[in-house]
Amino acid sequence: MVVSPNPNGETTHSEMRDLKWSASEKAIARKAFDLALGRELEEVMIKAKKWAEKIRHPSDLWELERYLYESRKQINQKYDYRYSVLPMVFGVLIRQGRLTERDLRGLREDKLGYIRRYLKL
Amino acid sequence: MVVSPNPNGETTHSEMRDLKWSASEKAIARKAFDLALGRELEEVMIKAKKWAEKIRHPSDLWELERYLYESRKQINQKYDYRYSVLPMVFGVLIRQGRLTERDLRGLREDKLGYIRRYLKL
Repeated sequence: MVVSPNPNGETTHSEMRDLKWSASEKAIARKAFDLALGRELEEVMIKAKKWAEKIRHPSDLWELERYLYESRKQINQKYDYRYSVLPMVFGVLIRQGRLTERDLRGLREDKLGYIRRYLKL
Repeated sequence: MVVSPNPNGETTHSEMRDLKWSASEKAIARKAFDLALGRELEEVMIKAKKWAEKIRHPSDLWELERYLYESRKQINQKYDYRYSVLPMVFGVLIRQGRLTERDLRGLREDKLGYIRRYLKL
């Protein structure tokens, strides 16, 4: 995603790469990231178990395989812990209801501002 | 697999492609093929269910995905219902203990001879 340069001094996508993360911000980010990832993996585990219980036909097996494949791919794509993209990752997670702004309390306004603008897009 | 031409008049791999299958032989072959395939799929279903019950960590999910992927690939490769390769497929299935010669009773000697020679290889 590319966000155009903004005359109001708001953080743009290209500027996001240059954001400085303090040690405490990194700790907050890591915790929130792991919280969301852990919840999502837990959901997949619960769903896979239920799915497996209902297997009756061979086609159910390959549907489960497809579900696991898609889940793994989607999780790998979404959970990208590079600081250069992390505000956008948090924006996605908030939009999907996997995190709230409260989980990110303690991040500075440069990051939170980016996340809020992402949510308004 | 290539079987060399044989001066004793035994069916070779290239001759296998030219074997004629009667309607009753086709029925016998179809039944045996479906029997072995059904059993193998049943095994994968049982194993996948047990596997899913034991999922505790995310890595268990991706191991199950890998198991399903490998099973599907291996089954697709092995169960090839082309008459041009069917005697060899039956040879593999007997060798793996998935069929016995009794399941193929009614096939003519040209096919059974090929299968027996495959088993001796």
